[in-house]
Amino acid sequence: MFARTPEPPYWAVIFSSQRTAQDDGYGDMADAMLALAAGQPGYLGVESVRGDDGFGITVSYWASEDAVVAWKAEGRHRLAQAEGYACWYAQLFTRVACVKRDHHWMRV
Amino acid sequence: MFARTPEPPYWAVIFSSQRTAQDDGYGDMADAMLALAAGQPGYLGVESVRGDDGFGITVSYWASEDAVVAWKAEGRHRLAQAEGYACWYAQLFTRVACVKRDHHWMRV
Repeated sequence: MFARTPEPPYWAVIFSSQRTAQDDGYGDMADAMLALAAGQPGYLGVESVRGDDGFGITVSYWASEDAVVAWKAEGRHRLAQAEGYACWYAQLFTRVACVKRDHHWMRV
Repeated sequence: MFARTPEPPYWAVIFSSQRTAQDDGYGDMADAMLALAAGQPGYLGVESVRGDDGFGITVSYWASEDAVVAWKAEGRHRLAQAEGYACWYAQLFTRVACVKRDHHWMRV
């Protein structure tokens, strides 16, 4: 669902990935990482979706570039990244970006 | 699928949306907008996925902020945006961001 981010500027990590057919606890780990991220300093929210073809986009939002760097280096997250390379992902693209402006709209 | 973006910096438009139940040509318009975007100056690629619950993320990539602004103002795109507000979206969040660094990996 939607992340309730504050006024820009803030940071976004755009993580695009193609899953392998291997499961081996992927769903549990993905859930654990979302929960772990939510407790990190500077965490602002996450939006995530994966299609039936195994291609997914997860965007996490952070208060600062330092918070992005710290999250990448977090110990349990690093273990999860290693398992991702070993098993779960066929291809991935991570992009670190600074959000300059945004626009939210909801039907009333 | 994955966008083959060049070396950063470049720009990303992160478009998160929740669809209504209304169809009325949404799929055709979405396809037409992807094709139209691909012909715009500064277009670098797009990644898009929508889940079964109607929540989707589309990230388009652009060579410059000017290219982002020009795409938002493109005539047929503006008509599509108006139809989106009128019919297709229950909620949306657009974020314009500058990509500072990225990392691509593919299983070999």
